[in-house]
Amino acid sequence: MSVEDVTKQAFAPRIQERLDALARISAEPGAITRLYLTPEQARAEALVAGWMREAGMAVRRDAVGNLIGRVEGRVPGGPALVIGSHLDTVRDAGRYDGPLGVIAGIACVAALLREGPPPVALEVVGFADEEGVRFSATLTGSRAFSGHLDPAALRTLDAAGTTLAAAMRAYGLDPGAVRTAARTPQTILGYVELHIEQGPMLERAGVPVGLVTAISGASRLELTLTGEAGHAGTVAMTERRDALAGAAECVLAIEARCAGQELQAEHLVGTVGRIQAWPGAVNTIPGRARFSLDLRAPDDGQRRAALADIEAACRRIAVRRRLAFGLALLHEAEAVPCDPALTALVGAAIAAEGFPVLALPSGAGHDGMAVAAIAPIAMVFVRCRGGISHNPAEFASLPDIEAGARVLLGAVRGFLAGRSG
Amino acid sequence: MSVEDVTKQAFAPRIQERLDALARISAEPGAITRLYLTPEQARAEALVAGWMREAGMAVRRDAVGNLIGRVEGRVPGGPALVIGSHLDTVRDAGRYDGPLGVIAGIACVAALLREGPPPVALEVVGFADEEGVRFSATLTGSRAFSGHLDPAALRTLDAAGTTLAAAMRAYGLDPGAVRTAARTPQTILGYVELHIEQGPMLERAGVPVGLVTAISGASRLELTLTGEAGHAGTVAMTERRDALAGAAECVLAIEARCAGQELQAEHLVGTVGRIQAWPGAVNTIPGRARFSLDLRAPDDGQRRAALADIEAACRRIAVRRRLAFGLALLHEAEAVPCDPALTALVGAAIAAEGFPVLALPSGAGHDGMAVAAIAPIAMVFVRCRGGISHNPAEFASLPDIEAGARVLLGAVRGFLAGRSG
Repeated sequence: MSVEDVTKQAFAPRIQERLDALARISAEPGAITRLYLTPEQARAEALVAGWMREAGMAVRRDAVGNLIGRVEGRVPGGPALVIGSHLDTVRDAGRYDGPLGVIAGIACVAALLREGPPPVALEVVGFADEEGVRFSATLTGSRAFSGHLDPAALRTLDAAGTTLAAAMRAYGLDPGAVRTAARTPQTILGYVELHIEQGPMLERAGVPVGLVTAISGASRLELTLTGEAGHAGTVAMTERRDALAGAAECVLAIEARCAGQELQAEHLVGTVGRIQAWPGAVNTIPGRARFSLDLRAPDDGQRRAALADIEAACRRIAVRRRLAFGLALLHEAEAVPCDPALTALVGAAIAAEGFPVLALPSGAGHDGMAVAAIAPIAMVFVRCRGGISHNPAEFASLPDIEAGARVLLGAVRGFLAGRSG
Repeated sequence: MSVEDVTKQAFAPRIQERLDALARISAEPGAITRLYLTPEQARAEALVAGWMREAGMAVRRDAVGNLIGRVEGRVPGGPALVIGSHLDTVRDAGRYDGPLGVIAGIACVAALLREGPPPVALEVVGFADEEGVRFSATLTGSRAFSGHLDPAALRTLDAAGTTLAAAMRAYGLDPGAVRTAARTPQTILGYVELHIEQGPMLERAGVPVGLVTAISGASRLELTLTGEAGHAGTVAMTERRDALAGAAECVLAIEARCAGQELQAEHLVGTVGRIQAWPGAVNTIPGRARFSLDLRAPDDGQRRAALADIEAACRRIAVRRRLAFGLALLHEAEAVPCDPALTALVGAAIAAEGFPVLALPSGAGHDGMAVAAIAPIAMVFVRCRGGISHNPAEFASLPDIEAGARVLLGAVRGFLAGRSG
């Protein structure tokens, strides 16, 4: 089948049908909620396994519940190019985040198999738990797949007090066998993931697909300022040590440091999502204020420099206002760069479809972050309306889904072309 | 008894004994909690009534539970100079806020009666409910005393669901008779209240007593900014409509507008005591932020001008940041100026004691606010440690209590001197 044949073939209507079919599998009527190790996962697994078999793949479930479809290449049991994303959702989710990448991957493999047997093995993986809604850890599926799942994760509890290990047993999985889900670098040639952007950059640039350069690293912190509480009516402005006024100044310093970057060159973002003042009475000067900071950048050096600048700025604000300053690092994840060679294939595929190649980092985490530990990765972003995700309003149009699937196919075909000689 | 005799007589040790005795009457062991219409009020009432009688006063309880001691002047039943404060407390209170003014008043009347019968009647009032902890309304005692208690207050509920009217009946009061507690302007020559400052101004100025010029008016508002929530990792800084960043800028604008005033000349204070961001997740750009504003000034025009400036500044911030802006006025109280003539007597008494006359407004509310509706008022502030009140750490020293009581006596004596001719 030539490129011209593919042009005539529309992927999107079939992909949309399957997105809709998966969306009907939910723990909550009228919403989309498919959590890890639930009856909804089992139903989604059965449905997607059927599509994989229909496309010509052999299907298995690994020890943490990831669903893996595979077609062999010229050397049976040889290393594979993996296409994947996740099948679980947040609560009251949209229908695109995760399933789109799995369903588009199945469509690509089906299209490629119609062109003949592939030179190397192809796999499509539906990761079982990316969102981490039920248990506290995210990326459980892809971390186990890459051999980097912390064994302590098996002891984490869901809201009902069930451990992950017990939930696995109830689902028919053996928690003692989790290590067998781990793949070695020798078995994976590369990993490509298609995902909705979950941000507004493609929409604002007016392009349907984007080339992901890296998954941004992130620092999460909690900052606390402590001054002196007092009566709102009796303490002169000049005598105050108002912790919230200090926090307000810090919030603006964070914004200024991040917004001061060149947008396309830097992609540094800093967010204060939570704030609280104590004692929290209308008529009391806050003696303490605490706020969160989520700082992300595709380059770790850039993120660390920004964090150092922000900490220094907040300390200066605290000193000037006679406030005590405290900072706690809650979470830190290094940036995961996408593989240049694999990403170049995605870029070529975008250009071949006639779209401008818009390169951007992923500010959100994805399964590719975990898989990158054992394989080169690349990611394709599909424009989504308003940048909205994790919400029933999440939406990607049929033309954009078509564009994404064709780019995915083009990149995989480009990869296989390099292996067919 | 001459001024010299009074100099030799120390008021403070006796006042402190009585403060301590009242502090032992509490609903909570190890703390001080005396709420309206409780067994603790009844016990406090009995104790204070005994002190009033011992000082030579006739004692009665009015229809809302205010305790009133009275000595007649030359014309029995004639108008009285009233000294008062309140006997109720907040939960886990200090021992000075309220009782100090009542106990010092009794000490002054006792001292004056030792000099001979007064030319006009003297009353000491222990108001039954100033703090308004049990029911939602504050100043219940003094509002009923001045004939300005809103009848709807009788239907307000405490935490147990008891109406104020039912609580009055259970206490032995007739809610239908509340109006009989109302005094007419013809029955009151003036009202003098001694109270701890509840702020740090006297301590910072290094003076034991202060002359109150006015009880500041107050506006309480809730301000809301609405932007667009978004993923903390995927929305570029320049594309954000971050409601919390906007709120932070407003908090600083409020601080700048209030702190920009000349301290001694203006006494304008503005406080943001509460703030919240929605959805309130670490990794989500806030789409909505709400914060409180408590704005107080001794001059209503000054407060209104500041409020207009603050509203305009917040609107400008919202427009520039593409945020919607909303403002709700929750509460407004006009400033209550102290009576110049009565206040001049307090100033003369402070000077006569050899202290500098530091004039300041009261940023906190007091019973005098309500009594001002029917009589000229004056207030004496006593320095309290760290400006702390509504807290077990509340403290006024014996020398400062002595200074306050002597100033109160001096002011009352000055008033009586003007009536004795």
